[in-house]
Amino acid sequence: MSIFGWILGRRLANQEQSQRKIGVFEGVPAMGLDGLGSSAYGPEAALTVLIPLGAAGLGYIGPIMGAIVGLLAVLYLSYRQTIAAYPSNGGAYIVSRENLGRNASLLAASALMVDYVLNVAVGISAGVGALVSALPSLHAYTLWLCLGILLLVTVVNLRGTLDAGRLFALPTYLFVASFLAILAIGVWKASLSGGQPSPAIPPPPLPQPTASVSLLLLMHAFASGCTAMTGVEAVSNGMTAFKDPPVRHGRRTLAAICLILGLLLGGIAFLSARYRIGAMDQEKDGYQSVLSQLAHTVVGDGIFYYVAIGSLLCVLALSANTSFVDFPRLCRMVAEDGYLPKPFAMVGRRLVFSVGILYLGFTTGLLVVVFGGITDRLIPLFAIGAFLTFTLSQTGMVLHWVRALRTGPKRAGNRMHLAINALGGAITGLALVVIVIAKFREGAWITVIIIPLVIVLLRLVRRYYDHLEAGLREPGKLNLGNTQPPVVLVVTQQWNRMADKALSFAFQLSKDVIAVHVARLSGEESDEERAIRGRWSKDVEAPARAAGLRPPRLVLLNADYRLMYEPLLKEIRVLRDEFGGRTIAVLLPEVVPPNWWQYILHTHRARRLHAKLLELGGSDIVIISVPWYIEEPRIEATH
Amino acid sequence: MSIFGWILGRRLANQEQSQRKIGVFEGVPAMGLDGLGSSAYGPEAALTVLIPLGAAGLGYIGPIMGAIVGLLAVLYLSYRQTIAAYPSNGGAYIVSRENLGRNASLLAASALMVDYVLNVAVGISAGVGALVSALPSLHAYTLWLCLGILLLVTVVNLRGTLDAGRLFALPTYLFVASFLAILAIGVWKASLSGGQPSPAIPPPPLPQPTASVSLLLLMHAFASGCTAMTGVEAVSNGMTAFKDPPVRHGRRTLAAICLILGLLLGGIAFLSARYRIGAMDQEKDGYQSVLSQLAHTVVGDGIFYYVAIGSLLCVLALSANTSFVDFPRLCRMVAEDGYLPKPFAMVGRRLVFSVGILYLGFTTGLLVVVFGGITDRLIPLFAIGAFLTFTLSQTGMVLHWVRALRTGPKRAGNRMHLAINALGGAITGLALVVIVIAKFREGAWITVIIIPLVIVLLRLVRRYYDHLEAGLREPGKLNLGNTQPPVVLVVTQQWNRMADKALSFAFQLSKDVIAVHVARLSGEESDEERAIRGRWSKDVEAPARAAGLRPPRLVLLNADYRLMYEPLLKEIRVLRDEFGGRTIAVLLPEVVPPNWWQYILHTHRARRLHAKLLELGGSDIVIISVPWYIEEPRIEATH
Repeated sequence: MSIFGWILGRRLANQEQSQRKIGVFEGVPAMGLDGLGSSAYGPEAALTVLIPLGAAGLGYIGPIMGAIVGLLAVLYLSYRQTIAAYPSNGGAYIVSRENLGRNASLLAASALMVDYVLNVAVGISAGVGALVSALPSLHAYTLWLCLGILLLVTVVNLRGTLDAGRLFALPTYLFVASFLAILAIGVWKASLSGGQPSPAIPPPPLPQPTASVSLLLLMHAFASGCTAMTGVEAVSNGMTAFKDPPVRHGRRTLAAICLILGLLLGGIAFLSARYRIGAMDQEKDGYQSVLSQLAHTVVGDGIFYYVAIGSLLCVLALSANTSFVDFPRLCRMVAEDGYLPKPFAMVGRRLVFSVGILYLGFTTGLLVVVFGGITDRLIPLFAIGAFLTFTLSQTGMVLHWVRALRTGPKRAGNRMHLAINALGGAITGLALVVIVIAKFREGAWITVIIIPLVIVLLRLVRRYYDHLEAGLREPGKLNLGNTQPPVVLVVTQQWNRMADKALSFAFQLSKDVIAVHVARLSGEESDEERAIRGRWSKDVEAPARAAGLRPPRLVLLNADYRLMYEPLLKEIRVLRDEFGGRTIAVLLPEVVPPNWWQYILHTHRARRLHAKLLELGGSDIVIISVPWYIEEPRIEATH
Repeated sequence: MSIFGWILGRRLANQEQSQRKIGVFEGVPAMGLDGLGSSAYGPEAALTVLIPLGAAGLGYIGPIMGAIVGLLAVLYLSYRQTIAAYPSNGGAYIVSRENLGRNASLLAASALMVDYVLNVAVGISAGVGALVSALPSLHAYTLWLCLGILLLVTVVNLRGTLDAGRLFALPTYLFVASFLAILAIGVWKASLSGGQPSPAIPPPPLPQPTASVSLLLLMHAFASGCTAMTGVEAVSNGMTAFKDPPVRHGRRTLAAICLILGLLLGGIAFLSARYRIGAMDQEKDGYQSVLSQLAHTVVGDGIFYYVAIGSLLCVLALSANTSFVDFPRLCRMVAEDGYLPKPFAMVGRRLVFSVGILYLGFTTGLLVVVFGGITDRLIPLFAIGAFLTFTLSQTGMVLHWVRALRTGPKRAGNRMHLAINALGGAITGLALVVIVIAKFREGAWITVIIIPLVIVLLRLVRRYYDHLEAGLREPGKLNLGNTQPPVVLVVTQQWNRMADKALSFAFQLSKDVIAVHVARLSGEESDEERAIRGRWSKDVEAPARAAGLRPPRLVLLNADYRLMYEPLLKEIRVLRDEFGGRTIAVLLPEVVPPNWWQYILHTHRARRLHAKLLELGGSDIVIISVPWYIEEPRIEATH
């Protein structure tokens, strides 16, 4: 237990809930790493699509990124008012559930879940990919680096969102500070030079054009650039993590993330046009990312460059953290509605939803292993989920305001709110269509298949719970029809003190006690049978008779297949006929070793029999465990 | 379950025991692969030590192998009479236990166990090593090949010794037939040519001498050659596998193994001297094993060569099978004496000791993985265990005969028996000393450390069981002092039909029923508490009063740390004071899903609480599981 305590921290009490909430300072690293990391690949993705246009492509990056930053602003305003309208949780799942109904909310939930899993796999492998291209000697360890980072993020999040926010604050703010500084220096140099700045290190020359501009190409560039916006919804999904008042802290966190992201995107687009920096083919030697070229061009090859690129690698690798904050919280809500297994709603050691965190870590670990740590092929699957949930959430909010306008008190802002969410919904819906069309053949079709499958799974889970609930509910008044004591079946292995204790307890419950000895468990006859039979009349029957009790009969059963439950279930059927209508209590004495490692010294026949009897026994059976202690347990207050 | 059935075969009944026993035909492959495989590396090991002598070394291989074959004959005679004296099991463990006492038997057991584990690791990796040197394109898959063969041998032995004997008969007899044929052809050619046969393919030239002969070198060659004899004890350890009459089948199997091994060793020594075949340096390019050179020299490069070498590879790779037959049987006996965990004595699905087989597979798998599939460094650790057990077994038999001569009826053969075992014990003891001295620095010291550590472990296990037994034994007459019914504590989550069933059963046991609701399991207050309290007086207390029962009180407990057992144990301490001396029965209702995969849909709070209460409850507590079925279970006769 102390190892657990050391790795995960002590178990937290319910009362400590409020001290575990986060503010803006921790909120940006905890929820913003996905969004901020997007600045590294969004512009690059758009520029990559523009490669065939050669130098002419740089003319289009400004307008494309301008459109994306505009979309970001709309999204910011929309989510800002969503947060205020749903202060406890303004995620797409809740907003859809409240305004669009079940189906839309399940669509939102499955899109978000798929997206969060992909985000972890893609984020970590992109970060490690950037790291090993900077330090090629690490290339052989790609998979282990991915799994190591995944383990780190999983464990830190099991410790709690607060711990994650604090631990990852350093790389986050270092990244923000260094890249904002680089962009500021670049813009300042550009303005001094009248628009044609001289680079510290000249960027690689742009390729020759191989195609001319087309609407489809620009659409594709816009769709690819839109990946820069994934992660903006994170704050709305993680509202329960914020301290009081949550709306203020959530809004400020959202504002910080959107502002920084907007500055980064705008600055990158502006400077790549000015310094004539284009995307390079990743599969060719000498590849440099757009941000690396930009940093080189503006500040050269000094310590500043390495700090900036180092913090960028950290942000990319840790962008998975956003999923680890939001995915378990989303799963909790879905589980509370009965669409995911209940364990997802259980509050763990550190007041976070440990099952969701472990599930996310395990699933993405599997993905990373299957893809060998290189998840490029998963990237086209991405962004669809994000834009689908953007659209659902905006549409839900539109209906929310419509309803507020119809039924609620007249408020001045509601029309304005409606307009903003309608604009947001329309634009993100349009962007979704563009993304699906532009990326369908690259792999987006997989998402289009997976999301409905997840919905089917969620509905199956709910059907199970509904079925269970239907059997359990409405007990009415306490039923006291059957007050006859049970027939007690005592399962003994040897005539020893443990059997004595069990038999004597059996007589506390009932006068009808039957002892069962299961023989031939080792395949052959043993002397235990003869021993127990020999002592029975003298040591058991005589004292029972003396105490005025009906002496317990001893039944010897043969386990032909060395399984205890088979002959026992047969005997129970016989007893059912004999004692019609009475409960049959199977009493299993069990040795409890003082220490957990001594468990391997026992065969655990009682435990396995317990499980089998529960599974197959039937509703007129109860199973009673009678512990036998080698040393009486001491109870310590351990958490 | 059907996958298990398909891989492992159906569950066997106790009555089928006798049909699962083996005869000589299966006995040779099942137990002899280790011994027969030794012919491949025993002579080679001796010749390797002789390399520095150059061509002159070949003059010594005859006398050295002659001594080894003589030792083999003595061992054969000794074990032949050991088998007759201990027909149910004549292994070193039993012989030492009966004649030399506890310490010697534990020494024998740990030496054997270490040896069996090493035999599996070394055997498989040697076989795979020979395979990849024949087919270098497989080199990258060394580890996977090792693990694959290990898995095969493990699964086949889980199916039973009979299955293993039958499956591995083909390669075994193919190997025996082809190499005996090669040796016969070689001897025939040599005798025709008057001692100087002309090779089909000339063997590589012998190296120039770099040292002159010394006693230490010859001792070393003898000690290395002695590895040819490991595996001879296998039959005596596996006697329980033979069908009636076991002595006859055991003796014949032993005779077959020793005869074939003796012929192989003698023939190899004779022909390598005649054809001038020496060992080659394994680390140099163009390495060929002695048997490969021999086959080439005698029969050339045709199909016969490939059949012979192919069957040799199989025999080497499968030599691990001997361990899988004997190790679980040894562990069973040691476990029955209380020195190993009891599960080692449990008879599994196919009437073999599955735990021992799985343990052996897992441990050697770990060794193979740690050493990356190349276990050359483990070879010097080998053979010590074998010769230690040879010596212990022979010495035990000497005492056995001494006692028989003193106390038993006069039998003509006993003096002869004594002489043979005394000779065997003396020679194997001497060989043991030579092996330890010659190989001490190469790694034999590790065995010298490990074996005592294993003995300490065995003794610790026994001490635990003695302690447990001391608490359990001598119950005397049934104790009926306390016949007061227990106080029943019903743990409820909600007021539903499951809780109703549990409460109504509680009243079958006792008039003192207390219901406990543990709140704040999700960290926050929920409406369950209010719901249950609201219905209590109307739905529970009123009907109980109407039935003339004391109404159950409802206790609400707060789980500050979201652990149910903490507040419950506290409440139990309170009840102990209130109802001094009475048993406290904790009643846990539990939902049983119809299918195993639905278990993930439940939080299993009842099961975890059950385990914790057993661990920490104390001896005045019993725990009652009340199952709640979504669908009443149907019992099928599945094995």
